Amino acid sequence: MVDAQLTDDQVAALDAWWRAANYLSVGQIYLMDNPLLQRPLVREDIKPRLLGHWGTTPGLNLLWTHLNRLIRERDVKAIFLAGPGHGGPAVVANTWLEGTYSEVYPHVGDDARGMQELFRQFSFPGGIPSHVAPETPGSIHEGGELGYVLSHAYGAAMDNPDLVVAAVVGDGEFETGPLAASWHANKFVDPVHDGAVLPVLHLNGYKIANPTIPARIHREELLDLLRGYGHEVWTVEGDDPADVHRQLAGALDDAHDRILEIQRAAREDGDLERRPWPMILLVTPKGWTGPDVVDGVQVEGTWRAHQVPLANTREDDAHRALLESWLASYAPDELFDADGRLVPELRALAPLGERRMSANPHANGGLLRRPLRLPDFRASAVDVPAPGVTTHEATRVLGHYLVDVVRDNPDNFRIFGPDETASNRLDAVYEVTDKVFAGTILEVDEHLARSGRVVEILSEHTCQGWLEGYLLTGRHGLFSCYEAFIHLVDSMVNQHAKWLKTTRSIGWRPPIASLNYLLTSHVWRQDHNGFSHQDPGFIDHVVNKSAEVVRVYLPPDTNTLLSTMRHCLESTHYVNVVVAGKQPTFDWLDAEAADLHCARGLGIWDWASTTEGDPDVVIACAGDVPTIEALAATSILRERLPELAVRFVNVVDLMRLQDETEHPHGLSARNFDTVFTADRPVIFAYHGYPWLIHRLTYRRTNHPNIHVRGYKEEGTTTTPFDMVMMNDLDRYHLVMDVIDRVPGLGQRAAGLRQEMVDTRRRARAWTRVHGEDLPEVRDWAWSAEADTGRGESPSTTAEPDTGADNT
Amino acid sequence: MVDAQLTDDQVAALDAWWRAANYLSVGQIYLMDNPLLQRPLVREDIKPRLLGHWGTTPGLNLLWTHLNRLIRERDVKAIFLAGPGHGGPAVVANTWLEGTYSEVYPHVGDDARGMQELFRQFSFPGGIPSHVAPETPGSIHEGGELGYVLSHAYGAAMDNPDLVVAAVVGDGEFETGPLAASWHANKFVDPVHDGAVLPVLHLNGYKIANPTIPARIHREELLDLLRGYGHEVWTVEGDDPADVHRQLAGALDDAHDRILEIQRAAREDGDLERRPWPMILLVTPKGWTGPDVVDGVQVEGTWRAHQVPLANTREDDAHRALLESWLASYAPDELFDADGRLVPELRALAPLGERRMSANPHANGGLLRRPLRLPDFRASAVDVPAPGVTTHEATRVLGHYLVDVVRDNPDNFRIFGPDETASNRLDAVYEVTDKVFAGTILEVDEHLARSGRVVEILSEHTCQGWLEGYLLTGRHGLFSCYEAFIHLVDSMVNQHAKWLKTTRSIGWRPPIASLNYLLTSHVWRQDHNGFSHQDPGFIDHVVNKSAEVVRVYLPPDTNTLLSTMRHCLESTHYVNVVVAGKQPTFDWLDAEAADLHCARGLGIWDWASTTEGDPDVVIACAGDVPTIEALAATSILRERLPELAVRFVNVVDLMRLQDETEHPHGLSARNFDTVFTADRPVIFAYHGYPWLIHRLTYRRTNHPNIHVRGYKEEGTTTTPFDMVMMNDLDRYHLVMDVIDRVPGLGQRAAGLRQEMVDTRRRARAWTRVHGEDLPEVRDWAWSAEADTGRGESPSTTAEPDTGADNT
Repeated sequence: MVDAQLTDDQVAALDAWWRAANYLSVGQIYLMDNPLLQRPLVREDIKPRLLGHWGTTPGLNLLWTHLNRLIRERDVKAIFLAGPGHGGPAVVANTWLEGTYSEVYPHVGDDARGMQELFRQFSFPGGIPSHVAPETPGSIHEGGELGYVLSHAYGAAMDNPDLVVAAVVGDGEFETGPLAASWHANKFVDPVHDGAVLPVLHLNGYKIANPTIPARIHREELLDLLRGYGHEVWTVEGDDPADVHRQLAGALDDAHDRILEIQRAAREDGDLERRPWPMILLVTPKGWTGPDVVDGVQVEGTWRAHQVPLANTREDDAHRALLESWLASYAPDELFDADGRLVPELRALAPLGERRMSANPHANGGLLRRPLRLPDFRASAVDVPAPGVTTHEATRVLGHYLVDVVRDNPDNFRIFGPDETASNRLDAVYEVTDKVFAGTILEVDEHLARSGRVVEILSEHTCQGWLEGYLLTGRHGLFSCYEAFIHLVDSMVNQHAKWLKTTRSIGWRPPIASLNYLLTSHVWRQDHNGFSHQDPGFIDHVVNKSAEVVRVYLPPDTNTLLSTMRHCLESTHYVNVVVAGKQPTFDWLDAEAADLHCARGLGIWDWASTTEGDPDVVIACAGDVPTIEALAATSILRERLPELAVRFVNVVDLMRLQDETEHPHGLSARNFDTVFTADRPVIFAYHGYPWLIHRLTYRRTNHPNIHVRGYKEEGTTTTPFDMVMMNDLDRYHLVMDVIDRVPGLGQRAAGLRQEMVDTRRRARAWTRVHGEDLPEVRDWAWSAEADTGRGESPSTTAEPDTGADNT
Repeated sequence: MVDAQLTDDQVAALDAWWRAANYLSVGQIYLMDNPLLQRPLVREDIKPRLLGHWGTTPGLNLLWTHLNRLIRERDVKAIFLAGPGHGGPAVVANTWLEGTYSEVYPHVGDDARGMQELFRQFSFPGGIPSHVAPETPGSIHEGGELGYVLSHAYGAAMDNPDLVVAAVVGDGEFETGPLAASWHANKFVDPVHDGAVLPVLHLNGYKIANPTIPARIHREELLDLLRGYGHEVWTVEGDDPADVHRQLAGALDDAHDRILEIQRAAREDGDLERRPWPMILLVTPKGWTGPDVVDGVQVEGTWRAHQVPLANTREDDAHRALLESWLASYAPDELFDADGRLVPELRALAPLGERRMSANPHANGGLLRRPLRLPDFRASAVDVPAPGVTTHEATRVLGHYLVDVVRDNPDNFRIFGPDETASNRLDAVYEVTDKVFAGTILEVDEHLARSGRVVEILSEHTCQGWLEGYLLTGRHGLFSCYEAFIHLVDSMVNQHAKWLKTTRSIGWRPPIASLNYLLTSHVWRQDHNGFSHQDPGFIDHVVNKSAEVVRVYLPPDTNTLLSTMRHCLESTHYVNVVVAGKQPTFDWLDAEAADLHCARGLGIWDWASTTEGDPDVVIACAGDVPTIEALAATSILRERLPELAVRFVNVVDLMRLQDETEHPHGLSARNFDTVFTADRPVIFAYHGYPWLIHRLTYRRTNHPNIHVRGYKEEGTTTTPFDMVMMNDLDRYHLVMDVIDRVPGLGQRAAGLRQEMVDTRRRARAWTRVHGEDLPEVRDWAWSAEADTGRGESPSTTAEPDTGADNT
């Protein structure tokens, strides 16, 4: 129990604001008319469909009320993240009380008419969602899927040394995996350069239909757990409002004191020893101040208060009377004047201007976003004297580019990853920064420090949440991850993509930086790990999201990776997925050619084609490994069937394959037909699941002739070439595919086809004996064919006359 | 510190087994030949590609060694789950030492030749994966993606009262979200009817490139955390083998005593108070007993020991000499005789027969699986006098069917869900069972008890892990979940589907029960929750997995849901995804018609068609809401354009759309053309993302004429009909689609089209004013059209002459 210092007047004022917020919350859930109860409630005042969540709402209102006191008294910069964001009415109510709502939505004024519109629009067709949402001022945290409030909060606090991020954790959400892991985010706070997160675990005891685990273990066990997570806990518990007001005010003061103390010690005394950060355990009844007993069963303080405690208020007079007395219990006439305006004494309780949590620009990151200072990628580009002569590890070279990005953007850019930044070969960045870590650091550790731009925890969920929080508050970042395990955040990227789509039509929210994925250690090179680590389906997952916000890139070599990543880091309001291997691979394009190729998104590689005119067959590819196999197949065909006219097409920007009516990057029908022909066989070597290419191209003229090879869920721990053979993506199979699909090739082609069958058999047998790939595969290089007279000029020709640029 | 009771001889024996397992582990990583070091190591003895993970391996070997002692001394039934399953060499080594490996793989004998094959095959093309995998005897836990070892373990322990499941948690895995949540699985153990899980947190301190969080917080903080998770902790710590052997033996004895004590109190005294379950904190160096310093840097006890500590042993003589002395340090000549056989004294340390963890049938669940006793679904079926006359909540009726399933399979079937069993309207099951909960139960709680068949935690990850563990040990279950949030387990279902695919070709692993999903609260009826809860893409995700193991069903009404679910519960070795709404919806088919329709998977509904002959247009649908809209569109067309010949097709089994060469359920080209015609427009109303239908049908003759409506990522909190309108899936738009695509319909059709446009406009406007759907939509019923002379007989005609059955 905390020794509270509030006067009775202060308690009354806090309680009045809280009542006003509760009144407005109930009004939103139920009322279409009669917002001030100026006449008895009638059937027509009630919405026909009652959709909303009351249970968590009074607790959120209570916390907002008290945080406002702290903000005013101490001039704190704070934002509010509602983990139980289905309590949308609470945040909406407070933003209206603070005036922000009417500022950004002038049609919802600060008077009775505005109040009525506030009520009507909630969970109403054409109105606003029932959860905290992008439409809600002051929010960076959609209240839909649970589990991310702490990781969002810690991401928001990074590099915002003066910010306090209040993060309410619901006791239902507490049970989720992502939330459970994210408590440990406090081991990555740099108390000098970062702000503070103040977690509030709100124990209201129930979920939809069950008690919550933290409410039903011994209290001491719960406190052990929270201490074990690295927190000092202030408990606030009760069901008497005045008592709880006093406790909570005291706890917030103490917690804020402790934050300042930790920050002061670090900033002024250089004391960087990790200490327990404060948090609050708030224990109040679910649906507090709502109907106690309804139809003979207990509602307040139980799971029955979760959504709409009085379900039948439109048709049932008794229920409607209960609603009326519930609303009246907040004494609205003391809170609002006859015009429905908040009375001046209450109005004075709100912080001013940008100190209002509803108007803090950190909760509208687009306002604060500064473009990254991006060096020219050409300075990091590798020299490519001719295609396929040199090799590089694409991500390692990208690491060198990122050195410059990190150096030039010291407080504005971070790299997140699950213990894989070095494994993914981006470790050059440690030349200029470290991995941040607040835990014990030993002599043996490398690149670990109290400050740093690289943030690593073995939790993809936490990495994703951090990055989202960092972006939503106006900064930039990159998430590097093993390709297969990025599926862990499928559901999170759904939510973020929905946020981006929705905010595109919210004028007062300027765009934020894109969410950039570098997916490496990809399906084709899981030499150490095998089948469990082979899954290229994240691409399929993201392309289900709105075309406005999703971009997918498959750079075939090092320079195209650099150009692509530079473009992604510059872009705003997208989810950019970049897939690129970390193993040594051939360089195909010099910097200029790479940049041009990436700008075009796809193009014919003349130097790899055997014709500049009409081809007999198009060999297309997307992805680094497929590009090698496709080029190797092309060189076999050139040597062995020189009369065959082959056009070679490489695709970097996968969305180019769609029609321009389907995706902003889509090629027009005419341009697509110019590149892929209207009637020639297209053999397409693709990085991922082959049907995605069909999905993207099924409306194209030549779709019946497009034949795709890709990953078809065949894999194990084996050699790289054995992997492509298991999935029929290898050069030999591609040659077979060409021969099978180009009519009239004759006897020589049939002989070559049999030779390919035999070579595949030989390759598999060799690998099983020797444990490595066939020498002719290991030693293969495009340069061997360079003296055929083609292949010197790494130029790229795009489809003609398209003006679309690659954004 | 534990007071150990081992004699020196016992310590020596344990140490010898441990050395043997370590020797075999190192051999697997490095050697192709010379397995017993009978001559100096040469280049050719070393594998060309060194792929494996050493760091975690000695710890796993140590635990297996000591668990064997416990098993022998106390006749314990135990299985072993290796969370850090990339330490595959450890589990493989121990299963070989126990003889099981040679029993199931006779080509890997128990002598020197077998040992050489054991070494050669590891991480070798054509051999075995580097992780613990389905190929590994004694395993139910793939060592690929991290985070699921505890939920798998608790699933395995359910309803196995005599089983001890030893679950090793790596300190890297410890950081993941799913693992963090799953500690709380101990609040769902019924000590009377369930077995025990013994978690071992192995703190070896490092991940791939970083220290781990639990190793770098204060020890007391970590112990607080583990106590807070509900455990009593025995710590075993050291780097002196003899000392650690004594500590670990004592800790295991104590922990097992504690397990027996809790079980005895519950079983004999009826004392069901929850107590802390024992666990072990094992602190030993990473890569213990491996190379200490290599090339001047510390390897043992650091992250550098994670994979292959000596990277260059084939080419570098110094590295090879280090490897040789490392192998020799285990004194293989004391462990194996000249023929490579384990010496008899060590052989005697292994448990016998099925007590060997490598041969325990619980780790090969197909051996133990008893088919469910499944009642005839007709007993629960609803009466359907005519199509569209009655309505039911499909999942509520399913709940009644599940009552019988639960009653008839009291120890063999469980329902898992994230707090949604009642919300998803399966609550009839509480007539015969409860929700199991070991936490505090209060008077106000309903259906909460110490035992029960329903298991609910607000963690989809934990639900999925429990169910997987339950199935993998030979039982049956159902996971009911909100459709949108099942994406949380995308990555887990990937891993499980890979397990199923792989085990199909492992003869000694009989099939296990299917993993059954009931996805309800689906995209079209998220009235309370809106955009964040709208995502039908899980179907897209699972169909990327191998066709052999994936099935997707979209029953259009209550009786088809019952028939489908009965089929799924009977099936084995699949991932079955069933999507069905919980809101009241029309009944279309009586029990017999439903069963026939489901067996066929798709079929023409004659009663809804306006022709039995050649149609002008095919209206097809899949999903409950699309079926209503498609039928409503059909009835408008029948009334307003009676000359138009409409064929109505409903699809339950989505995989029927694929070609028979692509999926075992696929329709032949001829049969597909018979149903969908070769050249008529097909207007397809689909539950999910529309492009999936294109992906499944792009090879079909009539694909150019298939036009799909589905969810296109447009949504918010609004009415059900407004939702379908936002996505152009509504009846009016479907009529417009028909008119746009059937040539030569003339002026009357043009007028109807305009009327549809106007009606849509009117509907949207009405909804925005009244907050509910247009009365004509709310009141619509198929029965209104029954007296046109069609619609009495709910019969279904499938495609002709297909013999495929729906398995």
